[in-house]
Amino acid sequence: MSKIVIVGGVAGGASAAARARRVSETAEIIMFERGEFISFANCGLPYHIGGEIESRDALLLQTPESFDARFKVDVRIQQEVVAVDRHAKVVTVRHSQSGETYQESYDKLLLSPGAAPIVPPISGMDNHHVYSLRNIPDMDKILSTLALHEPRHATVVGGGFIGLEMVEALRHRGVHVTLLELADQVMTPVDHEMANMVHQKLVDNGVDLRLSTGLIAINEINIAPLEPEATDSYDKPIAHHNTLNLTLSNGTELNTGLVIMAIGVKPETTLAVDAGLALGQLGGIQVNAAMQTSDPDIFAVGDAVETPEFVSGESSLIPLAGPANRQGRIAADNMLGGDRVYRRTQGTAICKIFDMAIASTGLNEKRLKRDQVAYEKVYVHTASHASYYPGAHPVSLKLLFSPDDGKILGAQAAGLDGIDKRIDVIAVAQRAGLTVQDLEDLELTYAPPFGSARDVVNQAGMVASNVLSGDEKICHTEDLFSSASDRMVLDVRNPGELEKSGAIPNAVNIPLHQLRARLAELPRDKQIMIACQVGLRGHVAYRILVQHGFEARNLTGGFKTFQLMNASF
Amino acid sequence: MSKIVIVGGVAGGASAAARARRVSETAEIIMFERGEFISFANCGLPYHIGGEIESRDALLLQTPESFDARFKVDVRIQQEVVAVDRHAKVVTVRHSQSGETYQESYDKLLLSPGAAPIVPPISGMDNHHVYSLRNIPDMDKILSTLALHEPRHATVVGGGFIGLEMVEALRHRGVHVTLLELADQVMTPVDHEMANMVHQKLVDNGVDLRLSTGLIAINEINIAPLEPEATDSYDKPIAHHNTLNLTLSNGTELNTGLVIMAIGVKPETTLAVDAGLALGQLGGIQVNAAMQTSDPDIFAVGDAVETPEFVSGESSLIPLAGPANRQGRIAADNMLGGDRVYRRTQGTAICKIFDMAIASTGLNEKRLKRDQVAYEKVYVHTASHASYYPGAHPVSLKLLFSPDDGKILGAQAAGLDGIDKRIDVIAVAQRAGLTVQDLEDLELTYAPPFGSARDVVNQAGMVASNVLSGDEKICHTEDLFSSASDRMVLDVRNPGELEKSGAIPNAVNIPLHQLRARLAELPRDKQIMIACQVGLRGHVAYRILVQHGFEARNLTGGFKTFQLMNASF
Repeated sequence: MSKIVIVGGVAGGASAAARARRVSETAEIIMFERGEFISFANCGLPYHIGGEIESRDALLLQTPESFDARFKVDVRIQQEVVAVDRHAKVVTVRHSQSGETYQESYDKLLLSPGAAPIVPPISGMDNHHVYSLRNIPDMDKILSTLALHEPRHATVVGGGFIGLEMVEALRHRGVHVTLLELADQVMTPVDHEMANMVHQKLVDNGVDLRLSTGLIAINEINIAPLEPEATDSYDKPIAHHNTLNLTLSNGTELNTGLVIMAIGVKPETTLAVDAGLALGQLGGIQVNAAMQTSDPDIFAVGDAVETPEFVSGESSLIPLAGPANRQGRIAADNMLGGDRVYRRTQGTAICKIFDMAIASTGLNEKRLKRDQVAYEKVYVHTASHASYYPGAHPVSLKLLFSPDDGKILGAQAAGLDGIDKRIDVIAVAQRAGLTVQDLEDLELTYAPPFGSARDVVNQAGMVASNVLSGDEKICHTEDLFSSASDRMVLDVRNPGELEKSGAIPNAVNIPLHQLRARLAELPRDKQIMIACQVGLRGHVAYRILVQHGFEARNLTGGFKTFQLMNASF
Repeated sequence: MSKIVIVGGVAGGASAAARARRVSETAEIIMFERGEFISFANCGLPYHIGGEIESRDALLLQTPESFDARFKVDVRIQQEVVAVDRHAKVVTVRHSQSGETYQESYDKLLLSPGAAPIVPPISGMDNHHVYSLRNIPDMDKILSTLALHEPRHATVVGGGFIGLEMVEALRHRGVHVTLLELADQVMTPVDHEMANMVHQKLVDNGVDLRLSTGLIAINEINIAPLEPEATDSYDKPIAHHNTLNLTLSNGTELNTGLVIMAIGVKPETTLAVDAGLALGQLGGIQVNAAMQTSDPDIFAVGDAVETPEFVSGESSLIPLAGPANRQGRIAADNMLGGDRVYRRTQGTAICKIFDMAIASTGLNEKRLKRDQVAYEKVYVHTASHASYYPGAHPVSLKLLFSPDDGKILGAQAAGLDGIDKRIDVIAVAQRAGLTVQDLEDLELTYAPPFGSARDVVNQAGMVASNVLSGDEKICHTEDLFSSASDRMVLDVRNPGELEKSGAIPNAVNIPLHQLRARLAELPRDKQIMIACQVGLRGHVAYRILVQHGFEARNLTGGFKTFQLMNASF
């Protein structure tokens, strides 16, 4: 009989405990959780704050009792594993409330401690109006502050998944929100121009977005009780709005009533380090493909571990629920004698921001540049379903691929509808080793309410295939104006579109349907950079021009991508 | 310079013409369309009848003028190619209105004539209240009849895609509808139990569904003008509701005001046959992977051709828009010297029925049985996104796979939300050659509004993997009661669920959380068939029982699949 001890009772730990019991009815399984709650819906926390998830109870997926009844797992909450004696194979456990400690032996130990919000060394960070959001008690505190103090204004620091979800939650509650982001974009998994769609959405929803702006200090404002101006105001409570004064990295100040810190998370490795387990190069717990640490009897999973990134194979920290769950199940199998391996992580992720979604899989362009990987990119902006059926919205998709063999390096998509589906489809294709040429031939569900006979993904595959085969040379926004003397920009949209959407500076406008008749107006000694609205008509124009002997390139994604590249927030 | 003649100006033909021009600016391209409209949205026709697509113009994607302006294609509408002289490489063209004919030569000829609605040899089929729906004029006639005669009742014959879409369209307009289907299910691409979800949806929406019922005869009712009963009724027009009397295959009769024939389509092969081109074994035009007919200078695409089915490689007729478009582009390339090949067709398809969707890819169980292919199947009923986030609905997914190697044979899904996405994901996995084990590890987008940390597809992959690895033996509804003497059925749901959802006859009920304590109640000389609501708790119960030495099987998909298997309509 095997004795399994699990540290951490949320995603990875709870998955592992349940799986271990399914594998072995006789194993002794003990799961320690230092907090009060196990297996809660941590991804749902912001939505309960925002009011979309009405019931707090809906977030509590399991109790220690229900978990034990189903899985015969000895769940010990409010008990923290504080030390591991690897030689004796014993852990030291401390009761959170009494502080008393005891020891528990193990045959196999699983570490699933998660990752903790990064708290920067800023003065005032311990103020009671400054919160981060990791668990149910954090959520309760934020809700309680919102209810008690009714802040009119809140500041979210950090524009990642949790930061953005908190921005939306607070706006749903009618609170004015400033979002501070030290980088020049939110949502680091996507590239800057794609993040610009999120920036626009935030601004459209009344968010005070401040990019390239960090938080330097938090000061409490001493509010002198106001003398009521009229007799009938005597009984009203004094509203303590804007009780904090923030100093920002650009020298300005900001008054606010509540600060949510969401600048990122770091793996919880104290226990692992104290036990002498090896860390990876990024500071997470090092594991092999079996989810085994440097001690063969200790396994680790979830946000605390490093796993190889799918495309590059390099070590990465990817704090996502899906991988944590899968790793938990694999570790459970292996602790009980199995030999399953965890495959690389693509980091497929999505975020809802008001009515839009933004998602990505694989590597982004920033990373490819940094790693000096050869890549090409195409953009499409294609309707989420047949444009003649109500409710269709453009899916803006960026596809990154190898110019040598069409290998899919990464993809990003944003829009109001059908974003999850397109990134899912590409994520499967990437994982299966398909190329961008294969995307053209994918057979996806089509009826007017759901897609198009040529889906967004087919379209992106087609454009990329044309680039690879040489059927189309493309250019990018940054190419339009470099060495302008030997280049010209030809805009083949209709004049009405230019008036409505805007024009490209210094571009010559010849609508596509007039192009064949007006070829004489075009120079034969310059490279002609063609632009249309989304790149489709530009392709037709490109094919016309090159077959008539011109040197041309088509702006991938057309004016719409041009706008995203040039937007400033 | 090459001269390309294209017969048919909708999906395949129009795609080919546009592509041909992009490939060659110098080719002469003539596209004949015997009807009035080219490149119209044929998939949108039912939705305009139902009123969801308000504007008729929205369906007219291109005019001959706009097509020529962009692609320099000589579009000749209302001109029908009536003969092909392959020796002289000349087609004979007839003007639809004048009947005059002329000849046009070709270097390469592309046939994209589509498929025609099957009109059974039934008396009364030529009645002016009997319609099929293939093109804009058909749609206009139906709309005009609806407006003029205001039928209170309509009969749709055939429960395929168009039949179901027409049922919904007519219900949207407040018309009572009877749906006649000769088979025992609608939507032949899916299996009977999955179709039962559609049957229920139809009944819930007031449709008079009559399965296993065919149409035998259509008779016009002679309505004698009624004598008005009151003086103030003299000026009212006489409503000619229910002007047709239908004789049905079960001997009953039905009065109706309008009949829509939608029993299927057959390839339009008259021109090909007259030209001496080879047909395939199913009666479609035979083509090779280059979309070339038995005459190397004649290509054919779309609903008129046979293509190899993905799993079996056998010839199939798959009248879908996506394949038609792809084939059109491939044929265009090859007519101009390319060497592209069309890959096999999975037949990925989806249909919206009121608020639900049903979709499939690959082969269904009926077909696997018929072909005596070894297969296993699992069912899951998993929430479309995190169940604690509003708007989640079960996705009922059936996954068919090879019991030898886990090869994906086919998949079907139905539900209110996220159906397209799951079938798309599996369609890509199938095309890429992934196995059901790979489905478990797919990394899909997850945030509570979009999915789950363990998505429907991951879940289905996990269940199938457990079957393949021997970690779970499953059973099916048909196994529950066969040779009942050496079997017992154990229902591990809570008593409240049995009361609410219904019980399985003769099943013993022991809730999962009591199972370990009540093992002594179970027989050791019988096979225990375990059932829960959807199969998840049954799996836990299965693992408990087999590890305690019992012989057990888990009902895949649980009581929910049991209900679908046993529903009768």
